[in-house]
Amino acid sequence: MHINFFSMIPAQIITIGDEILIGQITDTNSAWIAVELTKMGFSVQKMTSISDTEEAIVESVNYALGQSKLVILTGGLGPTKDDITKTTLSKLFGTPLKFNPQVFEDVEAFIQQRGGAMNSLNRDQALFPVGATLLRNKQGTAPGMWFEKNGTVLVSLPGVPFEMKGLMQQEVIPKLKTTFALPYIHYQTVMVTGLGESQLALIIEDWQNQLPQGMKLAYLPSPGIVKLRLGYVAEQQEVTELLVDEQIEKLKQLIPNNIFSDTEELLEVIIGNLLKTRFKTISCAESCTGGTLAATITSVAGASTYFKGGIIAYSNEVKEKLLGVSTDSIHAYGAVSQQVVEQMAAGVKLVLKTDYAIATTGIAGPDGGTSEKPVGSVWIGVATPKMVVSKQFKFGNERKINITRTTIAALNMLRQVLNDETITN
Amino acid sequence: MHINFFSMIPAQIITIGDEILIGQITDTNSAWIAVELTKMGFSVQKMTSISDTEEAIVESVNYALGQSKLVILTGGLGPTKDDITKTTLSKLFGTPLKFNPQVFEDVEAFIQQRGGAMNSLNRDQALFPVGATLLRNKQGTAPGMWFEKNGTVLVSLPGVPFEMKGLMQQEVIPKLKTTFALPYIHYQTVMVTGLGESQLALIIEDWQNQLPQGMKLAYLPSPGIVKLRLGYVAEQQEVTELLVDEQIEKLKQLIPNNIFSDTEELLEVIIGNLLKTRFKTISCAESCTGGTLAATITSVAGASTYFKGGIIAYSNEVKEKLLGVSTDSIHAYGAVSQQVVEQMAAGVKLVLKTDYAIATTGIAGPDGGTSEKPVGSVWIGVATPKMVVSKQFKFGNERKINITRTTIAALNMLRQVLNDETITN
Repeated sequence: MHINFFSMIPAQIITIGDEILIGQITDTNSAWIAVELTKMGFSVQKMTSISDTEEAIVESVNYALGQSKLVILTGGLGPTKDDITKTTLSKLFGTPLKFNPQVFEDVEAFIQQRGGAMNSLNRDQALFPVGATLLRNKQGTAPGMWFEKNGTVLVSLPGVPFEMKGLMQQEVIPKLKTTFALPYIHYQTVMVTGLGESQLALIIEDWQNQLPQGMKLAYLPSPGIVKLRLGYVAEQQEVTELLVDEQIEKLKQLIPNNIFSDTEELLEVIIGNLLKTRFKTISCAESCTGGTLAATITSVAGASTYFKGGIIAYSNEVKEKLLGVSTDSIHAYGAVSQQVVEQMAAGVKLVLKTDYAIATTGIAGPDGGTSEKPVGSVWIGVATPKMVVSKQFKFGNERKINITRTTIAALNMLRQVLNDETITN
Repeated sequence: MHINFFSMIPAQIITIGDEILIGQITDTNSAWIAVELTKMGFSVQKMTSISDTEEAIVESVNYALGQSKLVILTGGLGPTKDDITKTTLSKLFGTPLKFNPQVFEDVEAFIQQRGGAMNSLNRDQALFPVGATLLRNKQGTAPGMWFEKNGTVLVSLPGVPFEMKGLMQQEVIPKLKTTFALPYIHYQTVMVTGLGESQLALIIEDWQNQLPQGMKLAYLPSPGIVKLRLGYVAEQQEVTELLVDEQIEKLKQLIPNNIFSDTEELLEVIIGNLLKTRFKTISCAESCTGGTLAATITSVAGASTYFKGGIIAYSNEVKEKLLGVSTDSIHAYGAVSQQVVEQMAAGVKLVLKTDYAIATTGIAGPDGGTSEKPVGSVWIGVATPKMVVSKQFKFGNERKINITRTTIAALNMLRQVLNDETITN
């Protein structure tokens, strides 16, 4: 997926620390900073994670300064001996470190407030590059630094996420808005299910090709769901939003049954709201999803208002005893069949006394597949106050992915049933 | 924090895709790959995330090839037209794309198995650089590519995490081991639960300080579990392993009840094996975990041999009706109480006719907390053929994390019960 916003201002993000390079921690700072910068109208060209050595920092910072108007650096500002970012930058920008009373005050206040005492390491933190602008840190002891060099800005922030976020919100973002002439940018995301990335790409190809200049589409696929993100940059806010909304409408007419949200709402949230507003309850009977369907429904805070519970019927014995699935049906059609899934849905709805119920049965794999029912064969059933509907699906070989896709397909089936009722009522 | 293993082979990781640069997704591939490479004896010098434009790819790849012996590239191999990695690399390595029957076969088989039909985009995926080695993708349609140029290896993999991981494990890691003269590096990981990262750090501080020269400890924390990885690089295999094992033994004496594995085995796998080898069955009754406990147990292939099913008793009505929890207990002690969790465990064991049972009840949050039972209050019960044991936990404010930590604590309680039986029998 490629977006190219000509009027956006090129930026780069560099994270410092070997804990990232050995995979000990995942860098989440870069993604958070990127969201903020993109919203403001910067275009992040590159993210780099490097070792905390002087050579690595000098090399990457010089390279980035040559390519971008803004470089945001995180990490290597702690009071420990690893702290070499500050000394390296003061050399690199040719601005020596000097004792800064403001920083000393802030560090002292921060430590005393926590009942601690200043140590030599903390005192070193009051050394600050004379040529840099101080970004005061209310969340920790290491201040941020703002350097400028021939029209390019370099901001150095601590790597601790909440310290970095605090400094971004309180100091950096406001200062960036006054320093740079930023464009207006607008994004709209729609959530698509029931179509693979390539199927979807073919269906919407013509639509994508007719998008106005400067409007860019991003595909963000995950098992069972493809996020489509439409972005546009312009001078005037109104124009942009109208143009994007127009295109989203066209897209909705193209794949009306596959778009389940244009607010990035998840299926479990959508069905939760539908049930809550109608004062209806739901339960589920799971075989192949083994609890993931219920876990997904209950991942939403407040799910207890509409979700009464579920029965995980992994063995046929449980299907028969707790859900009332007939032994004959299991013998005649097998546990993975339309007959069984419909009895599971009807059964759990009856036993748990709910208005609706979802049931899943299938072969998640890797074992248990047969020639006529290979791994990935799934039946999903939905029981409503009026009827029971069911549908067959063929997924892949990956147990984990099959469980995820079955869960998403089941929630989407319920969503469609609930929507149809709205229309018919 | 800076680590330096001199004898390790320099490597770089590049992830391609604007979805990372706009912060819509966090790059988790790089951290995963870094862990694998470091374990093998590569030293990751840099991770870079770039835009999927030809210029960006050419610039970063050339730069990385000049600095490292191995470059691993992920992303930009999907069937959609914005994925241009393959064409760019074929130009960059001067090896044209040609129709590859093996790839075509793989793509066709993959799609047909899902009941789909080949489209023109899939057909394009069969075009493959003549000079590259094919890395067959069993998890998706985009194959991996292995290029070599004056002693440097570049591997291009799809960005979808489970496809990337599959290709790394099945194709790339074995090939890297035969291609490079890697130093001997020995890692031993122990899995710790029941202690937070900082608690753990304090307890093992002295042990960590007395580790021999060149032995490095890495913390890999996740909710409920901290992985401790002890690493050593050396010439002779035996010496290294003895030295590491020695230290692991010391560590085990320090926190005997918190280490549940020294083979990176997950709790659900460990309890699964214990139950399987003893021909015992299990069921679960879940309130606050809402299905996550069962989903975790059934995430293990073959779980059906010991897991019969479960009852998600989200409402008190279901706790009473299906699990036989007494109404009086709920009124007298509340749904989150020792009395109720023990009745839930005993109840589901009886109803599902299993040898063991686990039950959870608690306040996952964000709502539902009270002064004496704040959000994060959890009771876990385990029923065995002989008795019912229960334990109270106090977790945090995050719903998702509370559910994860409850699930891990529940599985660990069962593990301890099963281990105690081995000892006492």
